[in-house]
Amino acid sequence: MAQDKSLLPIGVFDSGLGGLTVLRHLRERFSHEDFVYLGDTARIPYGSKSPRTIQRYLAQNLAFLNHLSVKAVVVACNSASTQARFVESPVPLYEVIGPGALRASITTQNSRVGVVATRATVMSECYPKEIEKLKPSIEVFQQACPLLVPLVEEGWDDDPITNLVVYRYLSPLLAAGIDTLILGCTHYPILKKAFAKVLGGHVQMVDSAEAIGDQIERDFQLHKLPAKHDGRTGTFHLYTTDVSDTFEALARRILAPNPSAKLELAEI
Amino acid sequence: MAQDKSLLPIGVFDSGLGGLTVLRHLRERFSHEDFVYLGDTARIPYGSKSPRTIQRYLAQNLAFLNHLSVKAVVVACNSASTQARFVESPVPLYEVIGPGALRASITTQNSRVGVVATRATVMSECYPKEIEKLKPSIEVFQQACPLLVPLVEEGWDDDPITNLVVYRYLSPLLAAGIDTLILGCTHYPILKKAFAKVLGGHVQMVDSAEAIGDQIERDFQLHKLPAKHDGRTGTFHLYTTDVSDTFEALARRILAPNPSAKLELAEI
Repeated sequence: MAQDKSLLPIGVFDSGLGGLTVLRHLRERFSHEDFVYLGDTARIPYGSKSPRTIQRYLAQNLAFLNHLSVKAVVVACNSASTQARFVESPVPLYEVIGPGALRASITTQNSRVGVVATRATVMSECYPKEIEKLKPSIEVFQQACPLLVPLVEEGWDDDPITNLVVYRYLSPLLAAGIDTLILGCTHYPILKKAFAKVLGGHVQMVDSAEAIGDQIERDFQLHKLPAKHDGRTGTFHLYTTDVSDTFEALARRILAPNPSAKLELAEI
Repeated sequence: MAQDKSLLPIGVFDSGLGGLTVLRHLRERFSHEDFVYLGDTARIPYGSKSPRTIQRYLAQNLAFLNHLSVKAVVVACNSASTQARFVESPVPLYEVIGPGALRASITTQNSRVGVVATRATVMSECYPKEIEKLKPSIEVFQQACPLLVPLVEEGWDDDPITNLVVYRYLSPLLAAGIDTLILGCTHYPILKKAFAKVLGGHVQMVDSAEAIGDQIERDFQLHKLPAKHDGRTGTFHLYTTDVSDTFEALARRILAPNPSAKLELAEI
């Protein structure tokens, strides 16, 4: 008897723990689904690595998730998403760039969109290219923000120093007159408050988690991806390639108030 | 005929490019020696990884350097140095903790020593333990500074935001009345100016590069390590596990005005 694919979990992959913002959103939205999360904490950050190295790591991480049997994999990491199309996968791969670009192109009123992301994501030009395909009249302004992930990991997400760093990174985008800002890294939703302070009320933020949720919901409706309908509340398991108290504390903070943030070691 | 060991290069290993501050100092001091540098830029930072993972990576990196034939290896990375004694090596291994602790214990007048380092180095308690062995009456005050490496890599080493971060990290150490500060990470010498602003004139900084230079000079004098005496000016080769324009720019900045900062890829 063939296995009922709908019962398999959805894999969520990230270079670290920032992708837990995506996991949290997907669990709220698709509460019957099971999830398996893999964070490559041993090799974080991907944002400063070359495309070739990111492809190699991504392939290894997908092999780990597929070995656990999943029905799809969400590549929550933007830097890894830029390389997703170069890597083979036996199950559908959801990357975050396309959905984020789509949402931004629908949101903007003045056709001026900003992107904040890691250096790798900015260098790949993935958001400008995607948006160009969707609506060539939109102008895209990018800003690499390598300090934001370490600031979140230091726990300074509500802090005057972080506000100063965010202000410096966003100033050129505000000067360019953007009305929409893509948060092009899974850690950044944790900094929404700091972003809002600098952006003011007239700039809309686009969060990858919500954008990818839209796409998965569409695929469930179109039966491209089999949804789980057994009435049971979904479970989740967290794997990371390195485990430490700092990582567990960060996982608890992102998944709060969910108490189950125990990390299991994945040796890749 | 047995190979003349004195002619072999000295290997210098670091988790990234910060160790180039050590390489630069060693080249200035031992100008006839050849050097081979390996920076594990694909897996940087080590500072947030677990001891087990650091040991695994260190063993792989030592194997790479030994394969190139070296007469000794300097483990410039503090986080890796904490694990050096758990890893086997066919050639002498020089780690930075012992020499730094020795220099600090000689420097301090009031027996109050501060240590700034990555989280892994602080957690390992390596500096307090080493200093305890040398002079138990010295009190050691530690501070983990996870944001300093990203700030250096962003190129903000002479910047008001960096001064604020340094001020926040050093304040508890100054309040504790230290008169000596160990720069317990190879990136930190690049921030000496920012440290000096916060520390004022009465706190001495201990730089790992100089401390390890002292130890190697002693071993040359004692013939524990064969020095090269062929009159030729030494060469150096740089290998990194990931190569990017950002890394090359950082290497050039640290090795300036030396123009030869070309990185070769080491696939580990």
